[in-house]
Amino acid sequence: MTSILISEVGPRDGLQSIDRVMPLAAKKAWIAAEADAGVREIEVGSFVPPALLPQMADTAELVAFARTIPGLNVVALVPNAKGAERAVAAGVHGMSVPFSMSETHSLRNVRKSHPEMIAEIARVAAIADAAGVHFAVGLSTAFGCTIEGAVPEDQVVRLAEAAVAAGAKELSLSDTTGYADPAQVRRLVRKVRAAVGPERLTTLHLHNTRGLGLANALAGLEEGITTLDASLGGLGGCPYAPGASGNIVTEDLAFMLHAMGHETGIDLGKLMKVREIVAAALPGEPLYGFTPDAGLPLGLAARQA
Amino acid sequence: MTSILISEVGPRDGLQSIDRVMPLAAKKAWIAAEADAGVREIEVGSFVPPALLPQMADTAELVAFARTIPGLNVVALVPNAKGAERAVAAGVHGMSVPFSMSETHSLRNVRKSHPEMIAEIARVAAIADAAGVHFAVGLSTAFGCTIEGAVPEDQVVRLAEAAVAAGAKELSLSDTTGYADPAQVRRLVRKVRAAVGPERLTTLHLHNTRGLGLANALAGLEEGITTLDASLGGLGGCPYAPGASGNIVTEDLAFMLHAMGHETGIDLGKLMKVREIVAAALPGEPLYGFTPDAGLPLGLAARQA
Repeated sequence: MTSILISEVGPRDGLQSIDRVMPLAAKKAWIAAEADAGVREIEVGSFVPPALLPQMADTAELVAFARTIPGLNVVALVPNAKGAERAVAAGVHGMSVPFSMSETHSLRNVRKSHPEMIAEIARVAAIADAAGVHFAVGLSTAFGCTIEGAVPEDQVVRLAEAAVAAGAKELSLSDTTGYADPAQVRRLVRKVRAAVGPERLTTLHLHNTRGLGLANALAGLEEGITTLDASLGGLGGCPYAPGASGNIVTEDLAFMLHAMGHETGIDLGKLMKVREIVAAALPGEPLYGFTPDAGLPLGLAARQA
Repeated sequence: MTSILISEVGPRDGLQSIDRVMPLAAKKAWIAAEADAGVREIEVGSFVPPALLPQMADTAELVAFARTIPGLNVVALVPNAKGAERAVAAGVHGMSVPFSMSETHSLRNVRKSHPEMIAEIARVAAIADAAGVHFAVGLSTAFGCTIEGAVPEDQVVRLAEAAVAAGAKELSLSDTTGYADPAQVRRLVRKVRAAVGPERLTTLHLHNTRGLGLANALAGLEEGITTLDASLGGLGGCPYAPGASGNIVTEDLAFMLHAMGHETGIDLGKLMKVREIVAAALPGEPLYGFTPDAGLPLGLAARQA
């Protein structure tokens, strides 16, 4: 029985791809309910300029609120050093910088070349170190890019090494575009771990764009991955990668891990109920996932015994 | 590069769970188009009493039609010896009998106990042998039952042995209810193969009821499974197992296998187009699958190189 961390990214990755702004009170209710269901880490928002993503304007308030929940690891995304300063001031436990493996995607998304991003990572690392805050780099578009197409695996390895050299304590591999397949997940996890050490890569950020999300998660688990990002109701995607919508669904992932005998700390019944909060706050917004509709299998507990 | 057979079961498993009857011409167009896309095996229908399932009343005509398509393996489901006689008369290449591992499910579904089913399997085996037709037994509800809950794995192994002793040339494990998880798939494939020999179990029949279908398929592939049943657009389910709807989606499965470098013989672009035939013939019927909406990844071919 392995302990697997599900890191809920819906309040960040999910909400940033939706035009509507979820009211702060609903975000708080969502975070509180999901923590109460046993989720141990939540990415509550991102410290981007509010003019760019008004959905994320209340991230500092959410960090302050989430910090009051005992045992919850409160993380946020930061695009640059300026965001990192704000994240530290808000009191995050950890922060991560997305680093696009496709330079074209990086230039379009944050208007920075690869060398410019590595310099930015070094600046964020210095801020994180000074504040004693955990700092990770998310290697986005690691499995392919909607603009460039295939991203060479050697390029991902080289950039992963550069991110660690610049001060990243940890990396994650992100299938921003939903291009990944299980064989590729295995290969890339192995290659990056061989280059930077297995302890630096324990997280996958997967999307379910082509329905392969949980198969990719399984491949990652079999390679020793112990943290999986997921979004309640599969909310989310990348606004800069057209067609690339939907993180893997927290509910289905939690069911899969539970059924396989992994320990997540999550109460599945309580988790399914959190969906009602999101649905009520975003009426008409499509929610994904199969387990909430089908219900849990009869005798699931007995199967485990 | 492993060759994997996708066995299309939509015209049988998909259509039998839908109230409307698809016109014969549309079924023929579907079968022809899917064979043209490179699908090598299609379960075209089932030889059940037409009064019970009017959707399947034209199965003999479909067998005759499908037999005219060069290289296509034409299979059908038969519930009993009477159905087997009809299937042989129609000219199937192969037939399979569903054998529910949950006795309660078997009694409700076909009103036969386990010993009665084993006797029926022996009768079908004799008919198949005499006709030189391939004969498989599908171990349904092998991963759990919506009435009984968990089905003991030792019971599945014992019944698998009994089916082989009764004359089944081959077995498949069927997740009729969408209860399976990847760890269970691995365990049960190993146990059944250890009992009856690996060559007797090369097929999995998976549903996507809780979103785990492709993860379960991956677990099966890693255990050496080489045939996967799937349904175009995820049509299908078990009318006797409430809430258990939807085979794994042919389109997403074919994409996964292709991306992983397996050989299926399928042209993905042509396969996606077959969906239009099904959608036009069943307006308003929900079709599942993510790859058809998202499209194939840019540079997929290059990734393989």
